[in-house]
Amino acid sequence: MKSDVELVSTGSELLSGRTVNTHAQTLADKIRPFGLRLTRDTTVGDDLAAIADCVRSALARVDIVFVSGGLGGTSDDLTRDALIQIVGGGLVQYPAALAALERRYAAMGRPVTDVARRQTLILDRGEGLLNPVGLAPGMAIELSAALVGGVSNPAKKMIFVLPGPPREFVGVLEKEIFPRLGKMGLPVFQALENLLECTGLGETEIAERLEKIGLPTPEIEVGYCAAMGQIEVRLTVAPEHAALLAEKTPAARAALGAAVYAESRIGLEEAVGRLLAVQKKTLATAESCTGGLIGHRLTQIPGSSAYFLGGVIAYANASKVRDLAVPQALIEKHGAVSEEVARAMAEGVRARFGADFGLATTGIAGPEGGSAAKPVGTVWFALAAAAGTSAKHRCFPTTRENVKLWSSQLALDLLRRRLQGV
Amino acid sequence: MKSDVELVSTGSELLSGRTVNTHAQTLADKIRPFGLRLTRDTTVGDDLAAIADCVRSALARVDIVFVSGGLGGTSDDLTRDALIQIVGGGLVQYPAALAALERRYAAMGRPVTDVARRQTLILDRGEGLLNPVGLAPGMAIELSAALVGGVSNPAKKMIFVLPGPPREFVGVLEKEIFPRLGKMGLPVFQALENLLECTGLGETEIAERLEKIGLPTPEIEVGYCAAMGQIEVRLTVAPEHAALLAEKTPAARAALGAAVYAESRIGLEEAVGRLLAVQKKTLATAESCTGGLIGHRLTQIPGSSAYFLGGVIAYANASKVRDLAVPQALIEKHGAVSEEVARAMAEGVRARFGADFGLATTGIAGPEGGSAAKPVGTVWFALAAAAGTSAKHRCFPTTRENVKLWSSQLALDLLRRRLQGV
Repeated sequence: MKSDVELVSTGSELLSGRTVNTHAQTLADKIRPFGLRLTRDTTVGDDLAAIADCVRSALARVDIVFVSGGLGGTSDDLTRDALIQIVGGGLVQYPAALAALERRYAAMGRPVTDVARRQTLILDRGEGLLNPVGLAPGMAIELSAALVGGVSNPAKKMIFVLPGPPREFVGVLEKEIFPRLGKMGLPVFQALENLLECTGLGETEIAERLEKIGLPTPEIEVGYCAAMGQIEVRLTVAPEHAALLAEKTPAARAALGAAVYAESRIGLEEAVGRLLAVQKKTLATAESCTGGLIGHRLTQIPGSSAYFLGGVIAYANASKVRDLAVPQALIEKHGAVSEEVARAMAEGVRARFGADFGLATTGIAGPEGGSAAKPVGTVWFALAAAAGTSAKHRCFPTTRENVKLWSSQLALDLLRRRLQGV
Repeated sequence: MKSDVELVSTGSELLSGRTVNTHAQTLADKIRPFGLRLTRDTTVGDDLAAIADCVRSALARVDIVFVSGGLGGTSDDLTRDALIQIVGGGLVQYPAALAALERRYAAMGRPVTDVARRQTLILDRGEGLLNPVGLAPGMAIELSAALVGGVSNPAKKMIFVLPGPPREFVGVLEKEIFPRLGKMGLPVFQALENLLECTGLGETEIAERLEKIGLPTPEIEVGYCAAMGQIEVRLTVAPEHAALLAEKTPAARAALGAAVYAESRIGLEEAVGRLLAVQKKTLATAESCTGGLIGHRLTQIPGSSAYFLGGVIAYANASKVRDLAVPQALIEKHGAVSEEVARAMAEGVRARFGADFGLATTGIAGPEGGSAAKPVGTVWFALAAAAGTSAKHRCFPTTRENVKLWSSQLALDLLRRRLQGV
């Protein structure tokens, strides 16, 4: 069997605009340890012909197809009927699921209805998979050449059928399908992956630097995942090219230099937190335009109370003067969004909290408040420490939300670079 | 043209287990007013042949196909090449997008690189759609019979191509594609919809209260969208039942009572902000377990500086004593997570900032720090005003991130109810 798998997600609610389909993400993440790779997810409504068409097409491309949803007892639950169109046979009661359902209804003191009983039906050509969380069982259906006309290489293919509700999907997957995957003797293809989490460089700059050192190569795939001010670079190879990956990764790291803030999947707030914890340093924040976002990000990390003492959200100028000891004259002379005020804020919060580092932001998040000299998106950053205070200035010509996000990113990165000495 | 549309979402990250694909939900929700119905979403990796295959198959089934992602300038951006395999032609520079890119880079003081420039290429058989939020433009490609061999009913088909990042996807959709959809003479089915944004009631409680007043009816559909501590109730009818909707909406509002915080799609931070602005009141925050999240949420709203003065992130107990005048003895006697300390924090920050309202949180976000008496998730809230201080207590047995989110929600709602007098 090949390691590529597909998912067919059924359910009109997934295409209604009300519900986000999380099955693809869940499945891809959970089957990776088995060396399985999700190559396609097709989401389709409660439509018999469409479901059958999607499953049939998927079986033509890959050896293992997961199908989710449509296993209840009501009129819009059509997955079993669609599968019969493909593999033939009929429906039988799955005794273990029926017994579990009867126990559950007895506990609730309710009679078992026909609609309820219908959801414990399974294909007679399949095997029932008990649902540890809900009522409708899943199914494992093995396809032989005789069963699937017109499907290429039908020597041995598998359909795993899972209930649609996310907790039941995961329950059947982990409890019933994982043991079966383990026994299937899959030729485990475990792609090797090295991560370089970057900040301060754009995706295009990163790509150009990597191109200069010959990446990607035919063997080394380069993938990018860009979030706000944070780009994950993935170098991926098949196991036989492990040596090449080991050789090229340091070159990639060197090419990207100080932009690399971690080599595992963590955010800047966690990278900064780890550095503070290891170096036994403390931090206090003075936030104006970011309004608390930096504090919020830092405190997302468990254990942050060891190094984050707190801060002042100095949104009004009066707070900058009163709580951070910024001289009123400085604000009047240079404006609240200025290098001078940012420096005073950082030093003020450091002194107030008795912290090793004081980190400050002051800027114009917009959409109002900009001027020709200081357009919307103008932000000053300062970092105060015993050794002195440094400041930086950027302009993010974007929305209010993004100015805040980018600013929190740049502020954390200022501290990260100081802590790493890069 | 028929009203069925399909989406092809491209991007290996969507199948990697790291990212949830939200495009189908967004698109289905946003195209509904045009009478368009999403019938299938196919998510596929950065694979030229697979993307072309998916788009081709979709075109065989429906008249309008949306394609997202793969429009950047790096080696894994393959959507343009895949589309050329289907519609032919080549690539041209889209001057408006290039000009926007050059302006953006100039504002950042960075040189325009070749990789950056590459993302402003579009198909010469398509029309560029300016990206109001990012750099890579979208495309509108009209297919005539001559262009698509083997596609059924190819008289007139449309491919709309959208950037992958969610905000850019929405930006291009709303700003560029909506006007084009409006002009395409679609048989518009404009459902009428009334919204009730609720907090403080669960989905089943809401459903039960609505059932009691006879909702849904055969004419009035009731839809739910639940986020963290916030549930949107949608009452939807076809245009001919407008009178019935107008009649039933006040009854639904009355049945849900004080839980309804808005009748348009806004968050609690915006509802609170509007109330503060109208009543000309000011607010200061004292955050311990929420770590700045409440300030962050309040400052997401443009113009929040009119009513939000700032606050103290009193993460360390020393800050509670020093910056909020919480008596040390109070912390020693009752613990930092207690009604007494929450009240003192709210009163302390109100006094320090000279605000009309002081809002405080103190709790155990976890995963460490819980005890039998005060398990992880225990949070105290207090709201101080001239008329006096009120306090509230909740336990959220969930993750650190969710404790913080729920806490910010409940704190904002405490203030919202006070401002509304409900």
